[in-house]
Amino acid sequence: MFVILVYDFNEKRVAKALKIARKYLHWVQNSVFEGEISQANYKKLKVELQNIMNPDEDSVIFYTFRTQKYWLREEFGLKKGGDEFIL
Amino acid sequence: MFVILVYDFNEKRVAKALKIARKYLHWVQNSVFEGEISQANYKKLKVELQNIMNPDEDSVIFYTFRTQKYWLREEFGLKKGGDEFIL
Repeated sequence: MFVILVYDFNEKRVAKALKIARKYLHWVQNSVFEGEISQANYKKLKVELQNIMNPDEDSVIFYTFRTQKYWLREEFGLKKGGDEFIL
Repeated sequence: MFVILVYDFNEKRVAKALKIARKYLHWVQNSVFEGEISQANYKKLKVELQNIMNPDEDSVIFYTFRTQKYWLREEFGLKKGGDEFIL
């Protein structure tokens, strides 16, 4: 399956969240990640993020797709993320 | 069509970007918007954001879908955005 993850973590926890998300997905914008992921790893990723998040302050949204066939992606401006790791 | 918009604007321009995005879409997270949009409005939205963005500093990604049939959405934690407008 393919996943888009967008999050908004308090700055106290965002470095931890970034580290977790990057274990499973590609970093494509400040708080956006994409990638192919197995069902098992998707579950792990959700648990790991839920373990560090404060649900009163932080937010996580996952969009999941069986295939990349039915959507398009358009990007403008700076390409952030990728494989570089800048904090 | 259905659109997910994620952006990362420099703080000098982010209020303008928010105002533009909210004319067309629902605000669901700090820098994430969703909604049904016509092809014509999608073009307008892209032009308006491109007009205010600095492509060396800002980033915009659109994911577009003909239908919402082929994806799922899971959300955890704080529900940001919605109809309230907090800056």
